Amino acid sequence: MEYDVIIIGGGAAGLTAAIYAARRTLKTLVISQDIGGQAATTTHIENYPGYDLVDGATLMQKFQQQAQKFGAEFAYEEVQKIDKLNDGTFKIKTSANEYLGKTLILAFGLTRQKLGVPGEEKLAGKGVAYCATCDAPLYKGKVVAVVGGGNSALDAALLLAKISPKVYLIHRRDKFKGEEILVNEIKKAKNIELVLNSKPAEVKGDKLVESIVVSDVNDENKKREIEVQGVFVEIGLVAKPDIIKGLVDLDKKNQVMTTKDGVTSCPGIFAAGDITDIQYKQVVISAGEGAKAALQAYKYLQGKKGAPVGIDWGMKK
Amino acid sequence: MEYDVIIIGGGAAGLTAAIYAARRTLKTLVISQDIGGQAATTTHIENYPGYDLVDGATLMQKFQQQAQKFGAEFAYEEVQKIDKLNDGTFKIKTSANEYLGKTLILAFGLTRQKLGVPGEEKLAGKGVAYCATCDAPLYKGKVVAVVGGGNSALDAALLLAKISPKVYLIHRRDKFKGEEILVNEIKKAKNIELVLNSKPAEVKGDKLVESIVVSDVNDENKKREIEVQGVFVEIGLVAKPDIIKGLVDLDKKNQVMTTKDGVTSCPGIFAAGDITDIQYKQVVISAGEGAKAALQAYKYLQGKKGAPVGIDWGMKK
Repeated sequence: MEYDVIIIGGGAAGLTAAIYAARRTLKTLVISQDIGGQAATTTHIENYPGYDLVDGATLMQKFQQQAQKFGAEFAYEEVQKIDKLNDGTFKIKTSANEYLGKTLILAFGLTRQKLGVPGEEKLAGKGVAYCATCDAPLYKGKVVAVVGGGNSALDAALLLAKISPKVYLIHRRDKFKGEEILVNEIKKAKNIELVLNSKPAEVKGDKLVESIVVSDVNDENKKREIEVQGVFVEIGLVAKPDIIKGLVDLDKKNQVMTTKDGVTSCPGIFAAGDITDIQYKQVVISAGEGAKAALQAYKYLQGKKGAPVGIDWGMKK
Repeated sequence: MEYDVIIIGGGAAGLTAAIYAARRTLKTLVISQDIGGQAATTTHIENYPGYDLVDGATLMQKFQQQAQKFGAEFAYEEVQKIDKLNDGTFKIKTSANEYLGKTLILAFGLTRQKLGVPGEEKLAGKGVAYCATCDAPLYKGKVVAVVGGGNSALDAALLLAKISPKVYLIHRRDKFKGEEILVNEIKKAKNIELVLNSKPAEVKGDKLVESIVVSDVNDENKKREIEVQGVFVEIGLVAKPDIIKGLVDLDKKNQVMTTKDGVTSCPGIFAAGDITDIQYKQVVISAGEGAKAALQAYKYLQGKKGAPVGIDWGMKK
């Protein structure tokens, strides 16, 4: 089973790459265990241009259907090993099959670190949120908690404090690892209450989040239940680079280093979305990067045939 | 009238920047003579993820409404002059007003070179197309003409030759300025007919394109009428850099040089979309770049307040 392009990952970046590759009549396969990536975990997306308000999972299904319409194929499998063969093609071993690809697009993103406490999974998207930039505006007028101590948690708390009557900032230490300037802003904000030396023990609620229970890090039995309507989990993301280590250059955070156009250090391998060293993790940004990666893969294949092209436009001197 | 962000240009990049800036509660103004940019000139967009098929103008209206919903303001004026003041803010003089901006986002794109012949304007979007990557799939099974002699024209002809019974490639010279490899592919293609030393004189058709009339460059009276259902104008794009010259670094093609994140050489000025030195001109790519530019502008303003932030995410080490 040989493909022109194999895309690993089925989120916004991977699916957009599939749309663009398939439209260029490249034989295209997407390998992913699930569809939608991080976007699918957000119930209300208000910042994807063209959609006033859309459920992340629904939007990602539309992306997928569009890719399928143009002929992209899908394999719901886990990639276990990638080998670069002597002729420059790539051999992908999954849990179920082996595939050959003339080019690869890495788009399997990052994994959001979860709290790992009871109630979290059940209430995800029902008050438990993992992206303040995406979801903050939905919590206008509501009491919320932010969990975390880094810049993203501090930034989330400050953003929410502008629209919420009360924001609880829950952190397991007594100091924040975020920047001092931000910490000072946090301390000045009258409606942010610090809940330090505390870690979440449970998220409670029937259909929607009603409260969060935290325990003292020094005494697990010392518990406090805080009534909130939203819990923003901002404890970071993890890269899982095992299958690509040694194949492409990674930065210190294990992110794939790319050029502006999605080119990696390995000829024939392109990358897009949260897996790369790009600064922002937004659906429309990942989609744009996915389109670029696919157009670069097309260009690479044309180049191998000896026909480099300036794909979609030319400019008058 | 002072704004946090002034966005010059109302296409996919500018409107997405407006959505993102306004959502970050920045006071945002978009200055543009019209809405939609290049995208609005395409009647059938099939490659914007989330939309199976959408009219470019309709899609751009949605972008605008979304930006307005979050509070972005619009001024339908022509920018005549940009000055950087001593305090780092920017003074924008338009045909009707003066505005002050703490940051600027340049997103006024490029201008597609038109044929400038009778019938072209009337039939634009009705058989006359300006982007093969966008519109080629709509011309499956149809006889088409491509006008131009550069790489983008050659690439368009090759792309169309895969799906059309017959492609006429009209060029005013007897040699192509595109790459030799591409020229060879063109010559090998059995369904591409070269129409050399010829320039378009008229596009004919009632409601849709029916034919193109070309005249001999050496003898204007020597005319030929060719029946086609589509005319792809691929004679390039022009940058109009007058108002930004000296303000930001431009490349040899007068494109604004940016980093991966839309940062220009001038602090406080960001850029996105076709105006930049990015390789691809696609709605979803411009939209992604617009989002980045807005988030960078936000970061810049936070930094001026002394609060640099890692805006929308943090990653676990």
